[in-house]
Amino acid sequence: MLADKNPKPLSEIEELGEFGLIKHLTQNIKLRNSSSLKGVGDDAAVIAYKNKQTVVTTDLLVEDIHFDLLYMPFKHLGYKAVTVNLSDVYAMNAHPKQITVSLALSNRISVEALEDLYDGILTACKTYGVDLVGGDTTSSKAGLIISITALGEVEKEEIVYRNGAKENDLICVSGDLGGAFMGLQLLEREKRIFLETPKVQPDFLGFDYLLERQLKPEPRQDVIQMFEEIGVKPTAMIDVSDGLSSDIIHICTQSEVGCNIYENKIPLDPLTITSAQEMNLDPIVCALNGGEDYELLFTISLDDYNKIKDQKRVSVIGHITADKGSYQFISKNEQVHQLTAQGWNALLKNN
Amino acid sequence: MLADKNPKPLSEIEELGEFGLIKHLTQNIKLRNSSSLKGVGDDAAVIAYKNKQTVVTTDLLVEDIHFDLLYMPFKHLGYKAVTVNLSDVYAMNAHPKQITVSLALSNRISVEALEDLYDGILTACKTYGVDLVGGDTTSSKAGLIISITALGEVEKEEIVYRNGAKENDLICVSGDLGGAFMGLQLLEREKRIFLETPKVQPDFLGFDYLLERQLKPEPRQDVIQMFEEIGVKPTAMIDVSDGLSSDIIHICTQSEVGCNIYENKIPLDPLTITSAQEMNLDPIVCALNGGEDYELLFTISLDDYNKIKDQKRVSVIGHITADKGSYQFISKNEQVHQLTAQGWNALLKNN
Repeated sequence: MLADKNPKPLSEIEELGEFGLIKHLTQNIKLRNSSSLKGVGDDAAVIAYKNKQTVVTTDLLVEDIHFDLLYMPFKHLGYKAVTVNLSDVYAMNAHPKQITVSLALSNRISVEALEDLYDGILTACKTYGVDLVGGDTTSSKAGLIISITALGEVEKEEIVYRNGAKENDLICVSGDLGGAFMGLQLLEREKRIFLETPKVQPDFLGFDYLLERQLKPEPRQDVIQMFEEIGVKPTAMIDVSDGLSSDIIHICTQSEVGCNIYENKIPLDPLTITSAQEMNLDPIVCALNGGEDYELLFTISLDDYNKIKDQKRVSVIGHITADKGSYQFISKNEQVHQLTAQGWNALLKNN
Repeated sequence: MLADKNPKPLSEIEELGEFGLIKHLTQNIKLRNSSSLKGVGDDAAVIAYKNKQTVVTTDLLVEDIHFDLLYMPFKHLGYKAVTVNLSDVYAMNAHPKQITVSLALSNRISVEALEDLYDGILTACKTYGVDLVGGDTTSSKAGLIISITALGEVEKEEIVYRNGAKENDLICVSGDLGGAFMGLQLLEREKRIFLETPKVQPDFLGFDYLLERQLKPEPRQDVIQMFEEIGVKPTAMIDVSDGLSSDIIHICTQSEVGCNIYENKIPLDPLTITSAQEMNLDPIVCALNGGEDYELLFTISLDDYNKIKDQKRVSVIGHITADKGSYQFISKNEQVHQLTAQGWNALLKNN
C-alpha cells in the first residue's frame, strides 16, 4: 500500500519536453460524449450542451496539504482528483460531461508515476462517462499540484442549489459518514510506524473499506439517478466534503433556516465505529467533522418521504426548522448541542 | 516597481479561516453577464449559453516558474493570470464570459497582498466583461499557485480552430512581437543588480512599453471585434504564448501544411529593437522564440486580403505552403532557415 518513497528522478520528462509530454499522456484519449466537440489540442476545448445549462466547478490539490505521496498511490490520486470534482457536479443534480486537468510537476516525478496518475484520471473518466478535454502541464519547484475543472449539463428546472431548504423539510444523507476520516487516521498511524521502523510492514488487514473511503472515493452518481427514478427533486443539496456539521450549516445559512440533526440517525459503518473506538475517537465526531466522505447531503419536502423511506442508500437524519441560525444536534440521551462549522482550519491540524 | 521583498507574514488569513477568507475576497463580486446564472457560493457555478457553444481553457501559474514576486506586483499578477486565459478564448474567435480562480496560498502571503491580487483579477474581469463565478482556495507549503479556467461562448459557425490553414492562405499577426520577452530581460537585469546592490533603484526610464508587455498583457479582444466588423473569418488561429516560431508550427502541423515567414515583415516595436541590441540580443530571435506576447496569429484566405490590408493592427508576415513539415524563415538577405518549436524547455532556461 505504501508508495515508493524514492521514485527515480527520471530525466525523461525533460527529454520529452512540454509538447512531447502532453502528447504522450493524451494520445489515447477518446471523446465519448456528443457534447465534446473538440478536446485537447487547440487553444480551448469546445462543448455544446444545446438547451441545457452548464455547471462548472474546480478544485486545486496540493501535495502535502491534500495528499501525501508516501501512502497515496499515483493511480488513486488521479482517480480521487477527478471524483471529488464530479461529486460537486452531482451535488447540483447535474451530469458531469467534461474535465480539464492542469498539473505542475516537480522533477522528483517520473514518467511512470505520471502515467499512473493519468491512468487513474482516465479510469475515473471512463467510470463516470466524462471526457478529458483540456488542461495545462507545467513544472513546479515544490511538490505536485493538480487542478481540475469539471463541467456538466442539467435541465434548468432540475438544478438543485444549496438555498432551497424550507421549514419541516427532511434532512437526508447517502451512504455512511466518518469512514474517509478513519481511513486517513489509519494511514497516518501506519506512516508514523513506517517512519520510525521502516522494516515493519503496514497492517491494514480488514480495513479495506476505510482505506477505500479515503483513497478512492466514489461520487454518488447513483443517488442522482435514484432521484430521477423515484421522481424526487431535493429542495437543497451539497456534497459532504468538509464534514456533515459544516455542510448542513452551509445549506441552512444559504436557505436562512435552522436544523435539528439526531445522533441516533447518523449512518456509521460498523468498521468506522470499531476503528474509531480503538483509536480513542468518538465515531460521531468523525462523522460530523471528518469530511471527505463525498456523500450527498440533501433536503426533501415531507411530501416526498414515502418515496424515499425504503431507499437503502439514503438515511433521514433530521429536519429543517424555521429557527434561522440554530443548528441543533440532539444526542442519544436527548441533550441538545450546537453544531459548528469546522472546515479547513480544523482539517489542517489533522493532515 | 520592485515588490516588497518581505511582505509581513500576517496571521489574518488563519484568523479568517477558509470560509471567511473566501467571503472576504468575493463579497464585492457582481455578475454582469446574463449567462452567469449562479456564481460563487454553491457546489458549482451555473451558466446558460443557450444555443451558442461553450469554449473552455485553463492555465496554471506557479511562483518562481511563471512569475517572480520580486518584480511582479500582486495586482499585475492577478490581471495577467486572467488575461492570458482570455487570450486563449479569443484565439477560438469566441467571447469570454466567465472565469473560475483557484489559489494555493503560502503563509508568506498577507491579506493585503491577496486583496491586491483579487483587485487585479477583478479589474481584468471588468475590462473584458467577464464574471468570476467560482474557484477554490487552499494552502500551500511552497509558493503561490494560481489556476484559472475561462469559459466563453461562440456561434458554432464562427469557431476558428488551429487546423484550418490552407495552401496560399496569408499568415497574419496582430500588434508587435518580442516586447514581452525584452520586458522580462529588463526585469531580470534589474533584479540581478538589486540583489547585488539593494540600494540601487531600478532604472526603467523609457521602457514602460516593454514592462507593460511583460507585466500587463492585454488580450486582443479588439482583433476579434475587427473580424466581425470587416467580415473576415480566419481559417486558423492561435495566440502567441510560446513564441511565433512554436505557434506557427502548431497551426501548420494541425493543418498539415507548411509555411514561409519573412523576416522583413515581422512587426517589431522600435523599443524592442533598441533594447535587444543594447543587451546583445537579436530582436528577431526574441520575436520568434520569446513568447508571452499574447498577440493573435492567424491565417486568412487570399480573397480576404483587401479587407485586411489597411488594418493597422495587423501585419501579413508570410503565407501557407503545401509543403507539409517545411517551416521556412526567409531572412532579409533571402537566406532560408527552418523554424523550430521551442516551448517550455527553452523558456525555462530564460526564467
